[in-house]
Formats: sequence, C-alpha cells, structure tokens
Amino acid sequence: DSMAQNLKFETPHVFVVFGASGDLAKKKIFPTLWWLFRDHLLPNNTMFVGYARSNMTIEQLRASFEKNCKVRDEEKSLFEEFIKKCSYIQGQYDKAAGFVALKTFIDEFQKVSNNQPVNRLYYLAVPPSVFEAISTQLAANNKDNGDSWTRLIIEKPFGYDLDSSTKLSKHLSSLFKEDQIYRIDHYLGKEMVQNLMVLRFGNRILGPSWNRDNIASVMISFKEDFGTMGRGGYFDKSGIIRDVMQNHLMQILTLVAMEKPASLKAEDIRDEKVKVLKAIRPIELKDIVVGQYVANPEMNDTDAKLGYLDDEGVPKDSVTPTYALGVFNVHNERWEGVPFFLRCGKALNERKAEVRIQFKEVNGDIYPPGDLKRSELVMRVQPNEAVYMKIMTKKPGMGFGVEETELDLTYNNRYKDVRLPDAYERLLLEVFMGSQINFVRTDELEYAWKIITPILKELEEKKVKPVQYKFGSRGPTEADELMKKHGFVFTGTYKWTAPFENKL
Amino acid sequence: DSMAQNLKFETPHVFVVFGASGDLAKKKIFPTLWWLFRDHLLPNNTMFVGYARSNMTIEQLRASFEKNCKVRDEEKSLFEEFIKKCSYIQGQYDKAAGFVALKTFIDEFQKVSNNQPVNRLYYLAVPPSVFEAISTQLAANNKDNGDSWTRLIIEKPFGYDLDSSTKLSKHLSSLFKEDQIYRIDHYLGKEMVQNLMVLRFGNRILGPSWNRDNIASVMISFKEDFGTMGRGGYFDKSGIIRDVMQNHLMQILTLVAMEKPASLKAEDIRDEKVKVLKAIRPIELKDIVVGQYVANPEMNDTDAKLGYLDDEGVPKDSVTPTYALGVFNVHNERWEGVPFFLRCGKALNERKAEVRIQFKEVNGDIYPPGDLKRSELVMRVQPNEAVYMKIMTKKPGMGFGVEETELDLTYNNRYKDVRLPDAYERLLLEVFMGSQINFVRTDELEYAWKIITPILKELEEKKVKPVQYKFGSRGPTEADELMKKHGFVFTGTYKWTAPFENKL
Amino acid sequence: DSMAQNLKFETPHVFVVFGASGDLAKKKIFPTLWWLFRDHLLPNNTMFVGYARSNMTIEQLRASFEKNCKVRDEEKSLFEEFIKKCSYIQGQYDKAAGFVALKTFIDEFQKVSNNQPVNRLYYLAVPPSVFEAISTQLAANNKDNGDSWTRLIIEKPFGYDLDSSTKLSKHLSSLFKEDQIYRIDHYLGKEMVQNLMVLRFGNRILGPSWNRDNIASVMISFKEDFGTMGRGGYFDKSGIIRDVMQNHLMQILTLVAMEKPASLKAEDIRDEKVKVLKAIRPIELKDIVVGQYVANPEMNDTDAKLGYLDDEGVPKDSVTPTYALGVFNVHNERWEGVPFFLRCGKALNERKAEVRIQFKEVNGDIYPPGDLKRSELVMRVQPNEAVYMKIMTKKPGMGFGVEETELDLTYNNRYKDVRLPDAYERLLLEVFMGSQINFVRTDELEYAWKIITPILKELEEKKVKPVQYKFGSRGPTEADELMKKHGFVFTGTYKWTAPFENKL
Amino acid sequence: DSMAQNLKFETPHVFVVFGASGDLAKKKIFPTLWWLFRDHLLPNNTMFVGYARSNMTIEQLRASFEKNCKVRDEEKSLFEEFIKKCSYIQGQYDKAAGFVALKTFIDEFQKVSNNQPVNRLYYLAVPPSVFEAISTQLAANNKDNGDSWTRLIIEKPFGYDLDSSTKLSKHLSSLFKEDQIYRIDHYLGKEMVQNLMVLRFGNRILGPSWNRDNIASVMISFKEDFGTMGRGGYFDKSGIIRDVMQNHLMQILTLVAMEKPASLKAEDIRDEKVKVLKAIRPIELKDIVVGQYVANPEMNDTDAKLGYLDDEGVPKDSVTPTYALGVFNVHNERWEGVPFFLRCGKALNERKAEVRIQFKEVNGDIYPPGDLKRSELVMRVQPNEAVYMKIMTKKPGMGFGVEETELDLTYNNRYKDVRLPDAYERLLLEVFMGSQINFVRTDELEYAWKIITPILKELEEKKVKPVQYKFGSRGPTEADELMKKHGFVFTGTYKWTAPFENKL
Repeated sequence: DSMAQNLKFETPHVFVVFGASGDLAKKKIFPTLWWLFRDHLLPNNTMFVGYARSNMTIEQLRASFEKNCKVRDEEKSLFEEFIKKCSYIQGQYDKAAGFVALKTFIDEFQKVSNNQPVNRLYYLAVPPSVFEAISTQLAANNKDNGDSWTRLIIEKPFGYDLDSSTKLSKHLSSLFKEDQIYRIDHYLGKEMVQNLMVLRFGNRILGPSWNRDNIASVMISFKEDFGTMGRGGYFDKSGIIRDVMQNHLMQILTLVAMEKPASLKAEDIRDEKVKVLKAIRPIELKDIVVGQYVANPEMNDTDAKLGYLDDEGVPKDSVTPTYALGVFNVHNERWEGVPFFLRCGKALNERKAEVRIQFKEVNGDIYPPGDLKRSELVMRVQPNEAVYMKIMTKKPGMGFGVEETELDLTYNNRYKDVRLPDAYERLLLEVFMGSQINFVRTDELEYAWKIITPILKELEEKKVKPVQYKFGSRGPTEADELMKKHGFVFTGTYKWTAPFENKL
Repeated sequence: DSMAQNLKFETPHVFVVFGASGDLAKKKIFPTLWWLFRDHLLPNNTMFVGYARSNMTIEQLRASFEKNCKVRDEEKSLFEEFIKKCSYIQGQYDKAAGFVALKTFIDEFQKVSNNQPVNRLYYLAVPPSVFEAISTQLAANNKDNGDSWTRLIIEKPFGYDLDSSTKLSKHLSSLFKEDQIYRIDHYLGKEMVQNLMVLRFGNRILGPSWNRDNIASVMISFKEDFGTMGRGGYFDKSGIIRDVMQNHLMQILTLVAMEKPASLKAEDIRDEKVKVLKAIRPIELKDIVVGQYVANPEMNDTDAKLGYLDDEGVPKDSVTPTYALGVFNVHNERWEGVPFFLRCGKALNERKAEVRIQFKEVNGDIYPPGDLKRSELVMRVQPNEAVYMKIMTKKPGMGFGVEETELDLTYNNRYKDVRLPDAYERLLLEVFMGSQINFVRTDELEYAWKIITPILKELEEKKVKPVQYKFGSRGPTEADELMKKHGFVFTGTYKWTAPFENKL
Repeated sequence: DSMAQNLKFETPHVFVVFGASGDLAKKKIFPTLWWLFRDHLLPNNTMFVGYARSNMTIEQLRASFEKNCKVRDEEKSLFEEFIKKCSYIQGQYDKAAGFVALKTFIDEFQKVSNNQPVNRLYYLAVPPSVFEAISTQLAANNKDNGDSWTRLIIEKPFGYDLDSSTKLSKHLSSLFKEDQIYRIDHYLGKEMVQNLMVLRFGNRILGPSWNRDNIASVMISFKEDFGTMGRGGYFDKSGIIRDVMQNHLMQILTLVAMEKPASLKAEDIRDEKVKVLKAIRPIELKDIVVGQYVANPEMNDTDAKLGYLDDEGVPKDSVTPTYALGVFNVHNERWEGVPFFLRCGKALNERKAEVRIQFKEVNGDIYPPGDLKRSELVMRVQPNEAVYMKIMTKKPGMGFGVEETELDLTYNNRYKDVRLPDAYERLLLEVFMGSQINFVRTDELEYAWKIITPILKELEEKKVKPVQYKFGSRGPTEADELMKKHGFVFTGTYKWTAPFENKL
Repeated sequence: DSMAQNLKFETPHVFVVFGASGDLAKKKIFPTLWWLFRDHLLPNNTMFVGYARSNMTIEQLRASFEKNCKVRDEEKSLFEEFIKKCSYIQGQYDKAAGFVALKTFIDEFQKVSNNQPVNRLYYLAVPPSVFEAISTQLAANNKDNGDSWTRLIIEKPFGYDLDSSTKLSKHLSSLFKEDQIYRIDHYLGKEMVQNLMVLRFGNRILGPSWNRDNIASVMISFKEDFGTMGRGGYFDKSGIIRDVMQNHLMQILTLVAMEKPASLKAEDIRDEKVKVLKAIRPIELKDIVVGQYVANPEMNDTDAKLGYLDDEGVPKDSVTPTYALGVFNVHNERWEGVPFFLRCGKALNERKAEVRIQFKEVNGDIYPPGDLKRSELVMRVQPNEAVYMKIMTKKPGMGFGVEETELDLTYNNRYKDVRLPDAYERLLLEVFMGSQINFVRTDELEYAWKIITPILKELEEKKVKPVQYKFGSRGPTEADELMKKHGFVFTGTYKWTAPFENKL
C-alpha cells in the first residue's frame, strides 16, 4: 500500500526485545514503545520484534502487553497500526538458529526499505545469566555492516560485584564498542534527575554556596512503602544495596557532586561523574546501618502482616538487608568532610525519593541561639515532583521572631498541563537518538562497584545481622543516630506539604 | 470606678499628637492608636491627647477620625473606652500657654496614677516649619524629671537639603538626646522591609552569593499608578527625589547593602547603615533620569486626563520631577561596581514597591548561548507581599531545553490567616517599647542628605527639564536606557503572577 | 634674636610632661622629643615643659635624660637649642598652684608668639593614682579657650579591671572630649603593627583567604627572654594578663580580625575595632593556661638563677602569672570557630613578638597523606621585622616530593638603609598631628576589659595556682596541649631564619 | 666478567636513539643518558644503541657527543663503562634490514641477560618526515612480546597543523597503544613548571584567590635575546607560533588553568589538561600581534646587525613571525573573562621565561586612588628560577604611605647546594619509570592544534605582514597595546631583582 511505499524511502530501524515473554517486556517495554509510537516520536519506518524461547503468536504477544498500553478509544486504529509493525521470533539465547532468523528478518526489512541499511536496537530484557550468550550471538550474526548502526540496551543488574561486573564488561567490550552499549538506569530518566544539572549549573544564585564551606550534608533517599510482596525469593539474592544504592543512589550522588563538565556532550558529563566516583572511598561497617523489616500487626494492611522473613522464598536465616543507610565521603576540594547519606528501604512509612541538601548554620549568628534553622534545598523526584528551598523569614505579623518557610516550585502546581514523560519513554527515545548522557559508561560502573563491593563482601562474609524495623515505620532508629553523628540536624518543626495532589 | 482603681497602679503613659486637627492625625495616627488599643498592645494606663491651634471639642476630634477607625460592631463598647482616654488641648505651637496646660494635664494624670511618673510620647504631626517651636516649648515645659522617659516622634520632611536638615538636627540635639528622638520613615515598618535582614542574615544558602562577584545589579522600585490628584502644589515644593528617593529608597538600600551588624541592637544596626551611606558618593547628572508625567487622553481614567503641569497649584514652568531613576554605587569591597538603581515615580503603569536583586550570568556557560537567563531574587513590599527567586529549570516534558520559573513565597498564599500589621502600628508600638532600630538616626539622615543634596542643587540651579512621560506608562524610556547602560538585563520573557489576589 | 622673631609668627605649641623626674620621662619621652626635634618633625615654635613634685633645675632635668638621647657630635649645637626650649615647673599634682604657674607660662608664651593661641599637649607620665588629680587641675586651669587645641596623653594601666577603668574613663569624659584624649598603647606604634592594615586591605591576593573557611588559627605571641629582674614587686600587682594580654595583644587581635573600615579616618577604624571586641566573649578557665617561671640552675645566666618567687618584693605565695595563653573566639561571620591564641610570657627561650596566621590543610588533598604542611603567614613585629609566608613547593631536584619553604620579606634585607622609627616617635608625632588612629578609644578600652575582667577575677578569687615552667624554656607544655586541642598544628619541620642579623 | 655476571640477573633495558648522527642526539640525548648513567639513576642492565643511516664506528659516535658530556676527571673511568654499553647500528629508516639487525641485537642481549625479556625505549630523534617509516618498521620488527614493555619517544614537531598532526596520531595509534607513546615537550621537564601543580594545589593560602573573581590576567612569556643565527631557513617553515606557542606556552597554560585532578596519576592530570583545552576557543586576528625583527645597527652585537630577513635561507618576502602575542580565553566557570596572554619572541631585550599572575585591584579601596598597585604572583622558569609575590606594604619609616615590595623565593638563594636537573634528564628518567604525566597525550595534541590551526591558516592565507621590531627591543608596541586593551596594567614602578646571579 501507499504508506508502505512512503516508508520505503525512510531510514529503517528495528527494535528487538529479547525476553519478549517476560514481565519487563510486557509491563514496560512494549507499552513504552507504543506510547512513543503514538506520539510520533519514533522514526516512521521502525519495526518491533519480540524474541524469546517460548512459542508465541503475535496475537499472544499483543495480548500479553495490550492492557498495559492503556489504549484510549480514539487511539484504537493507531494501535492496530502499531501491532502491524510488531513481529515475534522464537529462538534460543545461546544457539545461532534464532539469530539467523533475526538476520533474515532484518535483511528482508532492508529490501522493502529501498535497500537502505537497517539501524538496530537490541534490548536485553533478560536475566544477566544470558547476557553473554545473547551478545555473543548478536555480535556473530546481527551487527550492522558499518553503513548503519547497532545499539545494545541492557538492564541491571550489571553483575553482582566488582568481579562479575568487570567480567561482563570485558565480554561486552570485546564484542561492542563503548558507544554501542546503553546500560539503563531508569532513575536517570526521571524528570527531576534530569533537572539536577540545570539547577546546579544554570543558576548563578545557587552556585557559590554549592560546596563544603556551606553545605552540611547531602541526603539522597529512596523509600518504598511496600515490602517484597511475594517476590522476596528474587530480591534476597541481591538485597537493597545492590538493588538501589549501588546504581540509582550512586548515580544521583554523582550528579549532585560532579564538577561542571566541559560541555553537555555525553563523554564530558560521564568524565565528570567518573571523577566523583574516583574520589569516593569504599565505606566500612561503621559507616552503614542495614535493616530488615518485620511484620507490623497493628497496621491495617495485609502486606504489613508479613515481615521480610515471612515472605516465602526468603531463607529463614537471611541477612539480606531491605534497608540501608550508608555515609559516603567525596574526598575532593569541593566536598571533603561533607557526608553524603544514601538511604534506601522497603516497607517504610512513605513512598518518596528525594535529594536534600542541608546547609550549615549561619556563622556568627546574631539571632537568639536556636532561632535560625538550617536552610535546605530539596529536589523531590517522586511522587509529586517539586523543588523547594527551606528558608528563614521574619514571622509575619506584629512579632519580631523568625520562622521557617519555603520558596516552592511544585510541578503539579506550576505545570498543570504538562505531561511529564515516564523514565523509560525518555530513555528509549535517547537510544534512538544516540544520546548516551543518561546511560552508564563502563568505567562508571567499575568505579561504583569498587566503592560498594568491599562493604557487600564484609556484610556477607561476616553475616552481619540487619537491625529489625517495623513495616510502615521510619526504619531503624540506628540510622537516625548515624546521621546525627555525622552532623545531620533533624529540625522536626517543619514539613513541606504538596499544595495539592498529583492527579495526572 | 474599679478599672480606674486598677489602672492607678500601672505605669502611666501619655501620647500627645501635635497637629491633631490635621490630615495625618485623622487618617493615620488616631486610627492606629485605636487599633493598638483594641488589640491590647499598648500599656493599659495610657492617655491620648490631641493638641492643635483650632478650637475643638472632644466630640469633634472623635468625629474627625472615627470613620477611619473602621470600628466593627462588636468593638463599639471598646471604642467608647478608647474615646474616654482621649483629651484635647487647644494651644499655639510657639507660645508657652498651651504647653503649660499640657504640663498641668500630665501632672494631674500622675496624681491619679498613684503618683507614678508619666512616660511621655510626643508626636509632631505638623509641618516642619513648627518643629523648632514645638520642640523648644516641649523641652522647656514638658520633659520628664529623669524618673520616667520622654520620646519625640517626628515625621519627614527632615529638612529640605543638607543645610536645613543639619540645622534642624542641631536644634533637636541641643534639646533632646539621640535616644529620645524617633524620626519616622514609615517604609521601615513594612513587613517585607522588616524581613530583609532575616532573609539576608538568616539563610546560609543566600549568603555566599550576596556580593559583587555574583550580583549584577540591585533595583529598588517604588511606583505609583496615580498622579498628584490636586495636591500638586504641595508636592511641587519637594518633588519625587526628596519625597521618596532620599528617604524610603535610600533606607532600603542600606538594608540591602549593609554588612552584618555586631548584634541586633539599634545602635549596631544603625552603625552599619551609616557605614553603607559613607561609601556612597554623590551622583552626577549623567547618573540620573528625571521625568514629569503628561496627560494620557487615551486612558479611561479621569485622573489620567491631567498631566502634572495641569494640576492647579503647580507652576506652569515647574521642573519638579515626578519620576526619577538614579544609579548609585556603594564603593566598598562587597559592592564596588554593582549599580543600585533607585527608581520612583507617580502616574505609572502600576502600583508596586519591590527590591530586585539581579544575579550575573553563569560563567563559562555550557548551555546554548542565550538559553540561561539571569537568576533574580525579588522581595515585593507592596502590594501582595512576596519573596520569589527566578531560576532556570529543565523545561518539563520530553524536550531537553531549559526555561525560567520561580521558587515562590507569596504571603497571601502561605499565610492566609495572618493579618500583616500596618507600618504605623508597628512603628508606634516600637516607640512605646523604646526600640529605635527602625527609626532614622541623626548621622544616617546627614549622610543620606550628603549623597542627595548635590544632585538636587544641580537639577534646581540648572533648571534641568524633566523628560515627559505619559500617565499610565512605564516612565521615560531614557530610564530603561540608563539601566541597560549599567548592565541591567530586561529579559522580558518572564512575569511573576501573584497566585491569587490579596483579599485581606 | 631673629630666630625668636621668626618663631613669633609660627603657631605655638607646648608639650608638658607630668612626671618629668620619672623613669619614663627620662628614658623615653624627653629622648623621643629630642629625636623628633632633631629631625625637624615638630612644629618650629614648640616649648617643652617638665612638671614634677621634686625641686629640679633645668640642668638637672637635662642631666636626667641627656645620655638617653645619644646625641652625636655633629648634633651638639642642635641639642643646645633643644635644651633652650625646655623648662621645668615644680608643683603638686592635686593642688592648683603648680597648674596656675603653668597657665602663666603658657600665657607668656602666647604673648611672645604674636599673641597666637597656644596648642597644648599634656603627657601624663605618672602612676594612674594621680591621673584624676592632674586631669582635674588641667581642666580647671589649663585648657585652651576654643581658639587652639588641648590634647591629653595617658599611659597604661588604664585601670585595673572593668570597674576601675570605667571609673577613670567617666572621670576623663566629664572633663575632656573623646577627641582630646590620647591613650597610648605603644605597641600600636610598631612598624609591623602599622603594616597590618596595609597587608590585609592592600593585597588582593590575600583577601579571599582571610576567613574561617581557610584560616585554622591565629596566634599572637609576645615572648620575653628575661624575668622581672628585681622589679617583681611592681609587676606582681598586675601580672602578665593585665600587662600585655589585655592591651597589646588584644589590640593586635582587633587589627588582624577587623572588617575593612569605611575609610582610614580614626573614627571609622576604631568603630571596626570595637565591632570585633563586641563579638568576643569572655573566656573561661578551660580556655587559659597560666604559668609562673622558676629558676633554671642549668642556664649560664645570672638572671636565670632566680625564679619569679625569688624576686624580692614578690610575695612568696604569689599566684600572679608571668605567662599566659588564652584562647579567644570572635563570634562573627568571618571568624566563628577560628581560635585566636594570645600568648605572652617572661623568662622564655626567646624574645619575639609575632602574628602567625595558620591556614587549614588543603581539602581533598591529592598528595600523599601528611606530605602537605599547612601554609602560614607570619608577621614578625620584633626583633627583625619581617613578613613571610610558609608555602609548599616541589622539592627541588630530581625527586618528586614536596617540601616547605617560604616567600620572605625581611626588612633588614630589603630595606637596608631605612631607619625604622621607634614606636614612641611615631605616636608622639601623631598626637601633634591630631591623628587618633593608633590610640585607644574609650569604648575600645571598655570592651577589652569586659572580655578580660571575668577571667582575671576568677583566677584571683579562686587563687588558681599557675603552672611552673623553667626560666629559658618554651613555657608550660600545658599551653602547647591547649593549642593542639584547639587545632593548632606544630609541624616542627620548618624554621624561618632571619637572613642576617639586625645591625641598625 | 663478574659485573656482566651480576647484570645478567637484572632486568635488561635497551635505549635506541634513531637519528644518532644528528644534532639532538649529539648535544642532548647521549649527554643526558651519560649524566643519568653517571648518577646511577638508570637500571643497571641498560644498553644504549645509536641508529642512523650513516656509516659510523662506535668511536665516531663517541667523538660526536663526548665533549657535550662535560666529563670531569674523576668520572673518566665511569665514562669508559658507559661507552662500553653503547652500540651503533647502521640502517635505513624505511627498510626492514636495519630493524632486523636491531631485533637480533636485542635478542642477543636477552640471551646474555639470563633470557629475561628486554624492555625497549625507542627515541625518534629524527625529522617528522620519517616518523611514519620508523614507527611502521618498529611495530613490525621490534615490539616486545607482551612479557616486557616498549616505549616510543618522539620529539616535536608533531605535525604542522591539525590535519597533519591528526594523520600522524592516527598512524601511531594504529601501531602503538597510548601508554606506549611519549611525546616530549621538554618545557614540561623544567623545575618551575613541575612546581606549578604543587604551588597551586599544595597551598591553601593561594587557592581561594585562584579564579576570575580575583585574577585580572595571566601572562605566560618566553623571550629569547638572540635571533635565528643562521638557522632561519629551518625556522621559517614553522615560525614562532608553531615553535613555541602551540606547544610550550599552551602546555603551561593548561597547568596554570586546570582544575585539581582526581589524583596525581598521569591519566587524571591529562584529563584535566584536556578539559582546559576544550574550553579555549580558536583566536582571531584581532586577538594576536605578530612581529618580525629587523636589524638594530646601534647594538654592539654582531647578531643584532642582521634582521630576520637578512638571515640567509629566509625568503626575502617571508611573513613568518618571530614574535607573537596571543590573547586566549578559557571559557569556563573559573576563568571566563580572564585573558591569558601567551607571548613569545626572538631577538628581544632579554632571555626570560615566566608565568605572571596579575591580580585585580582591591575593591572599595580605602587608600588614596592609585596608591595600591596590583598584587602579582610570578613564577620564573628561566633563568634564575624563582617564585615571588608582589605585594603592598606600608612604606617603612615615619611616613604613612604604602609601596610595592615582594615576598620572594629565589632558588639560587634558598637552594644554594641543590643542582636542578636539566629538563631532558628528568623526562628521560620518567620514560624509564613509565610516568606519562609530563608527556603530551594524543587528545591534548589534537585540542591544542584545534585552537591554533585556524589563526595559523588565516595568517598564512592572508599573508598577514608581521609588525617590525628592532633586535634587542621589547617587541612590537602593538603587543603592549593589545595587553592594555585586555586589562593588563603595566605599573612600571617595580622591578624584581635576582638577589645574586646564578652561578651553577
């Protein structure tokens, strides 16, 4: 038909999802591809291929993800078009046959595309155990010929520790060049994380105080209000440190701490992130509090009736942390002596992710002792994206006292009509565009593992027992103590309230 | 009665209003005294005395100010009590008789107050031409005997230029001590002006950027959207520079620019304000734009049909400015090279008073040229008290661009239920409390006149003709040009909107 | 004669030395007046008058100070002229007679000076016990008539504690105006102390590091290598804290710590010095180490054979300190948290007075731990005036290490042919010129006493026993410990050597 | 013999000098190897091989360099040992034969060294035209087998412009890894250049002022007091910009401007240097002054009788500059707006190389206008290594004025007995040690060319005629004008004098 005729002259792209029958593919990748397609953000002449070991018809594939696509009525015919562009290839991950079939598919696609070379995106939505097999086959059978490009997208976990990560990196490096590898940390796709660099480097008013002279501490938090919910068996193999701290939180730390890059090019930015990681030393047992949640019978919530060890699949003697607070130090001129608290946990009192910069007290204070509270700058990643600055003002009215208030930028309030894209949408689009800024470079990964691996090893070798905390609580009080010891001040008098609820 | 019995043992205070039949007394002073009385903020045993040349009964006095008191129904009996505490004395300003009568009144008051010495507050709500006469009489007849205190409150204009101001100051100093003299600049009583010191010295996050390295300019604006409204004859003798710039704006300038004082004591704060004034050099003709408004027949507003020269009482060849923009420089380590724009005018496009700190561009900018706009910190004095910070953020959504937004603290929004006191309420209360922080010390006045007098003299001697600007306009475009020349950047793309209207 | 004829038309000055028969007059004041006269630095028509209770001829007066004048052969006739200008008046300090005689003398002087009014300088080189008497008589008999000026020069001790000092100040203030009173602290006349302000405010390279962010501590030392030498009876009444710390060291502290004044005018500078004193809180016992020296039989020095308590005149149970180290804190924005060590002592290992600014370690150091030593800036007041900066450089040669060296400005080296004036010369000249910059204002004195009096009282009331230290030693090791506790780092590896000895 | 026996067990090294018959080899390389050998700084078991196209005996080789070795009497037998370790291989640069001979030589050496693999250092002391040929042959025949190492040392010019340099870099990269390539810029071996990083990063006192807020300009000068001296034909092909500015001066600029590296590792340091180069934009004609010297008949110097165009070999219409001043800007947060003056020239009034940091005026200056001169920090590279800081002090003596003086560290003075090693000694030793810190990485070279190539091209394409300046003068006055235009202040009142002459 004529559309096919038109497409024929557009550059062809193929997006292949390995692990097409898995959860990630169903819940995230295919729906995201649909949204990008729907919003006309992808190249017109793009084909989507599912690849997995199971036998599956295209209808079965569609059925597996359609409801996650939330197709609105007026989009139905567009969705049919999307489905027409989807294919499925059944194959093993470690045998050539399936990959040869894929090659044939791509060759055919090239033919109908006026013989233009096909750009290839391979998304490995599979367990890391088959990363090596698939990448080996892809390298052997499915790379471009130099007249188009090939990009490989992989999901964490990127190894289990420094050794396994390095092994995987070396394997990948032997087959693909750095600029072909896209390691996804979906946290880097969040609106507020993307905003961090602009806030820091785009505002002269904030620059001069962004250093050890003025900043007392930086807290990067990631709190979930639910437990493992039956998937504890899987979680138990990694634990919260690998799952959240080593990647998401450490990535955000580098964005908060890095020096201004030479340019906005991916290499320059990633150079600076690596420079930060080089300046962080591995932490020791005294610098960390690990916790494990227990049931909270008082809570009116079924989930809360089960502690972590009650989750089937979790060994009864598991010492895997579901909560961790680590105190890191960036040993350079800007940050020496400023503690970075990385805090993450499940089954806590709230769901929240934020970066909180706490400033030092005013020196030589002329106000009555204790009146002035510390300034804070908070960037809230989720939910309810917001930036706010806690400041002191005169208490309004006849009195003469001072009090805390905030300068506030709540996104829901200010940007009522703007849809904030999902992290995956942004990141997949960036792969299409070839922007590696928000993807983890090999040396970033290596240095992050260098920092985290020793403490992981020590916790595991010494079988350090995590502190118990109740489902729905703030986490172990030991964590608050450790923060206080490193100079964090809980003022307690002030609480930011989202002006109104996120309804988007 | 028993209340009188009780009062008898409380310290007696008398508040005498000279010029009791005048506008200021009717519109401002008596109503303010009532509000303070109503809110139980004054000492219980306080008497209010009106003094003027006219013959007047206490009922006539009451009638003159009652409607300005906005007495609510439930306050009526309280208002009657207030009136019972009011007296009226008829007398000349330059003859002893009336002052002797006042002395008798106070002596009597002392007797019924268990013979406790009476504290005295004398408010000179009279033209400056009688300041000397009244103060001479007061010094001769109505000072305390050392066992209570006497405070003299005077209203601008404090002279007409350096010479006349110094003459008046010397006169007052010969009769009263510095700590007895309260020169009111009601602008210092505004909520946001009071907040300036807290914002500056209470927030570590702002401190490091408060200097010439980071601040491009400071603009202090006072704009009125109405003309002289028939009172041009009076205005013509002073002009906008004496009326607004020399006092209100110069006072705010010192609060923005001063170093942190040794303490919050009035003397320490006023020492620092004077230190700023010492560092400002008189400006020259090239540093100022003066304007005079003309009629704007297109505006649908009767007031706008008349230009300044059309106001009866204004000489047809008057060169008195109704608008002025002056560029001042504080020649010290913190501020050298940073222009302070003092801007004031009548008959402009809006009614607004604000302080705007414009920060420099980010150095070594990595964003596309022109993308980053300057940060600004704005403190809005009136209407709609607010503090906001204009910053750059990532443009929310799929794109990669940056845009201006603001961190905002709008008082109406945040402090919905707080009544912000009127400037006079605050200041009169401070006189009762003996706090001189917000009153102008003799040397402050002297140095401010030293800065302003030369340009006033030059404008007047050379009969410099003001630039004409239309009623309801932004003022002379020459003013914008002068600001640009000194580095102010009009970005034009951003406008703060008060979240909702002030309804208090 | 004709010279007298010429002088007749020059403004007459009279310089009166009360206590003309005392040590200070003989050793310091008359010789200094001679040197100033010799170098033609004084007004031509100046008369010098000695005043004391003893009967004395002018020849006896001359004999008392001549040898201290070190008159060179070629100056002999000039010296005779100087003597011709000297007179002597015998009189009591508390009776009018002598002062009336002085009045007559001055009146006569005025007559021969073409009847021009005589400027008067009164130097009170007497014990403080007669300050009040003399000043009362002077005020009654010898002040100018408003057509010339009168200046009163007084020597410490200005009281014994806050109360006695305030009493004296009030007495003086009732008779003389602040701008007539010159309190001498001869330390302020030293070349290097005079240089402090230039070094601080004249060098852009040093300014940005002059604050708590960069400075670890400030040490102000005054060490003598001799004991009380038989004058212990007199010394015992004051002790080293009153004798040195409360005045000399505290004065230098204010010069090191003060903010940049509005101008170089005496009032502006003294305002800033007072502002520093206001920010210092009284110290407590834990902040001070006091010592008393004991004999050191091993030293080959007669003086060293006697400990302080062995000095006749010193009570055997005296707890008067001959050594003190106090740790002060200037509670303001620039200095909060930076310890100021004021250290003074007798009978120590060397004679030295210096200011030593010790900078913090480099943050985020990339050199091997411990390699980089702290930068220091040292201003040596005596002996051998010098400024030097201890810095790290590459160890010259093939190696790669770093080492300490210094950037040096040794006055003897650089300014070989410049005679540095004695402190008294400079200060007396300044009195003639009416410059009060280097004299102590009443409020300065008051605030300094406020800081020191409480600890003096506590030491004396509790009879705190000083730590013993050997004659010729570095002082109590407890002092070093206290300094270390407050963060001072004794590197020990580096010692500045004066390039060659002072031979002037 | 037994020494050979001992050596046998030490790791064997071979140092091969290509171009052994050339000037550089004779004058610099062999003598330097001898000095290192003499001082026992090299590995014991090292052989030195000369390689060139000419036929030469080992005696002839020795004769060619011996007198440059300045062998002292007591070193003569040691020198004989050195010669015994020297060999010579005759061969072409583009034919395999000679390289096969070299391979045989190395294989033999390995055998006598207990069969330990031989480390190889290849010094290409040849014109760039044969770089490619030699490196190709070396790669084919003479690399290690992975059990020892190979290092390639090359001398500038590294190409003639960006294209030719990139071509050479690509060629080398295809044969050798980055860590095998040592590009020598001998300026980086100078004592004071090595000191730059220590001075900057080792001294807390200097750190806070090292930025645009405080620094007015940076001047990096390289002045020679002699002309081309008959070698103008060779010089004319490159000119002073390629010869000095693009390499030596640009390298020093990066050391002055770079941010603190993550560590002292070569890669971290070179990363930072590259980051600086990325921030420099190519300069335009308006940013440069080029000059060409003419004869100065008045000078009593034969050399001065000839202008550049008089040198035989120089085309009569040559527009090759012998002098250049370029104004560069480092477009980043630290340096934006600070001009970096790179200045180099031949036939000038002195021989000097230095870095001069000129600080801004003090802001809000309280001293009389013009009294305070700018602070400067000067690092003198040659002759007479020194660091000095020009500061303001009080003019010593009775006066009250201020004057310039300096804090000085003159190496000859302070380090009388330390021999400062020659740049080549240091650098060759570093190649043995595998330290690449002081060698130019491929990307550094590329970015430096990117900055310089456009102006070179423009000068050459437009045949811009250089300004004439006299032999022995300060260079073109146009250069001073350009510096002034960019804010450099020639104070003229102060001149540093080396305390005494360098006699080493």
